[in-house]
Amino acid sequence: MFHAVIPAGGAGTRLWPLSRKDRPKFLLDLTGEGETLLQKTATRLGDLPSSITVMCGQAHVAQVARQLPDARLLVEPSAQGTMAAIAAAAALAYSEDENAVIGSFAADHHIGDEATFRRAVTQAIAYAQEGNVVTLGIRPTSASTAYGYIQQGDYLNATAPQEPSTYRAARFVEKPQARIAQEFLNSGEYVWNAGIFVFSARVLLDALSQFHPEIYTPVMAAVESYKATGEFSAQLWAEIPNAVIDRAIAEPLAERGKVCVIPTDMDWSDIGDFASLAELVDSPVQAVPGGALHGVIRVNSSLGIAYTSSKPMVIVGIDNAVVVDTPDALLVTTIGSAQDVKTAVESLKIMGMGKLT
Amino acid sequence: MFHAVIPAGGAGTRLWPLSRKDRPKFLLDLTGEGETLLQKTATRLGDLPSSITVMCGQAHVAQVARQLPDARLLVEPSAQGTMAAIAAAAALAYSEDENAVIGSFAADHHIGDEATFRRAVTQAIAYAQEGNVVTLGIRPTSASTAYGYIQQGDYLNATAPQEPSTYRAARFVEKPQARIAQEFLNSGEYVWNAGIFVFSARVLLDALSQFHPEIYTPVMAAVESYKATGEFSAQLWAEIPNAVIDRAIAEPLAERGKVCVIPTDMDWSDIGDFASLAELVDSPVQAVPGGALHGVIRVNSSLGIAYTSSKPMVIVGIDNAVVVDTPDALLVTTIGSAQDVKTAVESLKIMGMGKLT
Repeated sequence: MFHAVIPAGGAGTRLWPLSRKDRPKFLLDLTGEGETLLQKTATRLGDLPSSITVMCGQAHVAQVARQLPDARLLVEPSAQGTMAAIAAAAALAYSEDENAVIGSFAADHHIGDEATFRRAVTQAIAYAQEGNVVTLGIRPTSASTAYGYIQQGDYLNATAPQEPSTYRAARFVEKPQARIAQEFLNSGEYVWNAGIFVFSARVLLDALSQFHPEIYTPVMAAVESYKATGEFSAQLWAEIPNAVIDRAIAEPLAERGKVCVIPTDMDWSDIGDFASLAELVDSPVQAVPGGALHGVIRVNSSLGIAYTSSKPMVIVGIDNAVVVDTPDALLVTTIGSAQDVKTAVESLKIMGMGKLT
Repeated sequence: MFHAVIPAGGAGTRLWPLSRKDRPKFLLDLTGEGETLLQKTATRLGDLPSSITVMCGQAHVAQVARQLPDARLLVEPSAQGTMAAIAAAAALAYSEDENAVIGSFAADHHIGDEATFRRAVTQAIAYAQEGNVVTLGIRPTSASTAYGYIQQGDYLNATAPQEPSTYRAARFVEKPQARIAQEFLNSGEYVWNAGIFVFSARVLLDALSQFHPEIYTPVMAAVESYKATGEFSAQLWAEIPNAVIDRAIAEPLAERGKVCVIPTDMDWSDIGDFASLAELVDSPVQAVPGGALHGVIRVNSSLGIAYTSSKPMVIVGIDNAVVVDTPDALLVTTIGSAQDVKTAVESLKIMGMGKLT
């Protein structure tokens, strides 16, 4: 049985003022298509998983419950990183089904080609059942320094070339410098690490207990508290060292030849900022979620993306403009400065306007 | 007796969305000092005039009456240019006082040095009583192509050098090209035409009947209708050819040596756009008239000027930004593009959003 886990953390600070602490990116329908990123993450899995579990913080439980009424909800008492969330979900699945295969999917990414995605996940499940940790990689379209990279090793499915190509993962590389990223792109041997992992619960828990007993032990204690009371003990949960699955599990297992990577071209985006969001939307003029669509008049201005809520806007003499007019805060920037929105949000906190973040 | 006339027309389109058809620039306190531009125009005259007459359109009568409760109001049934407005005001003043001296002052300009202004007006009144049309010129601070220029001729007050220097006006020049403007600036012989004229009513009416009987005749007919009914006949008023006092009266009289010019350094601005407004305000963050002051957070951005109304704004990676957030329309531009706001307002009309203009 295949079980999907969606760790729904991440503030999406670079998408402020659309994304807020209490209404983060994954809870929003940013492209006006009628589903939030979280809902799309669930629906694009189709009928592959027999269950979907969302791990989220207390502040978002009610909204997640409304958006995904059929999902199982696990509440993290505090944010301890994806490793804690995924290990706890795996342990709970394992206690119900020793052969459980888990897939972990970020709650706030975009995948345009869902058929390709599902074929790759199906392939990943098959390799996971053989004891591998499997990751879906993204064939790079640029020498981006915003993502980690995975080097492809041996080609594994020569006997079934009609299936998605699958490789041994030679190694994981953290976000590289530009020159290195260009070498990776030129080599054709590297894919972006999109953080999508498929594995059997047993393999994950074994690896965690082997490589990181300091994580494994408190996770299992917290899981026992959950089984006893229906919620994770906040005290036990807080003792779990903060870690991410890539470094804690995937890297040491890759060194031992136990990780597979499936390169994909599935129109993936992590929607990291307004520049990447602008590439996804059908129209550069959108309504703020819950707001109204109004006209945008431009003079000597190309438009990156504009979100209206209550009134029209006029942009004069600014190229690649990004203007987000929410009811309680206004952002004006450009595609080229989209990454720096994060700095502005930090400034808001420093200036005593943290309630807007 | 000296009578001030304030022709209060002009849309101030380049200051949209602060300035609107029904609430134009002269009715606004743009710098947050507690008085509108119209009120400042009246108060800076001090006790020089024995009366103040405002000529305005029907749409603005109530607001003008509230802002200047002691001023005489004349309502223009239609906009026929400053010549019609000033001639009608002069004819009414003349019918009450044959020696009336009139000063005409734009309703929407800024003058920082009011003492210098009043000394120049006092000097102008003296020369006007001798039969001259007198204009206050602005010593140019740049080779601007946005203003007309006046060439200084003979120096007139050698016997009273303690009074403001006064010259015969050699000629009026329409807005010049950049090269010519630079020559004017370099020569030291030219001043900007700020449209401030002082003259006896009799001289003006005589000149108008001589040079422009086609204007004089319908103006006098409209004035008769006013005397009979208390308002200008809309039909008669509409027959007055559209003209401005500079070309209709000042230019032909200057050719005949009947115009004086008093160059001034009085910190003058016509507040023509957000670039010139930004130079006037104490702080680059202002409240929209009637709105509230909110914080403006900037990252990698210098600020030209920002007007807040209901919420804070964040500007990232835009230099010399101009952001005006009114309740029903948002403007985003830069100091360098401030002139093009006019084009945007025309676009709004074309796009069916004329009610916002």
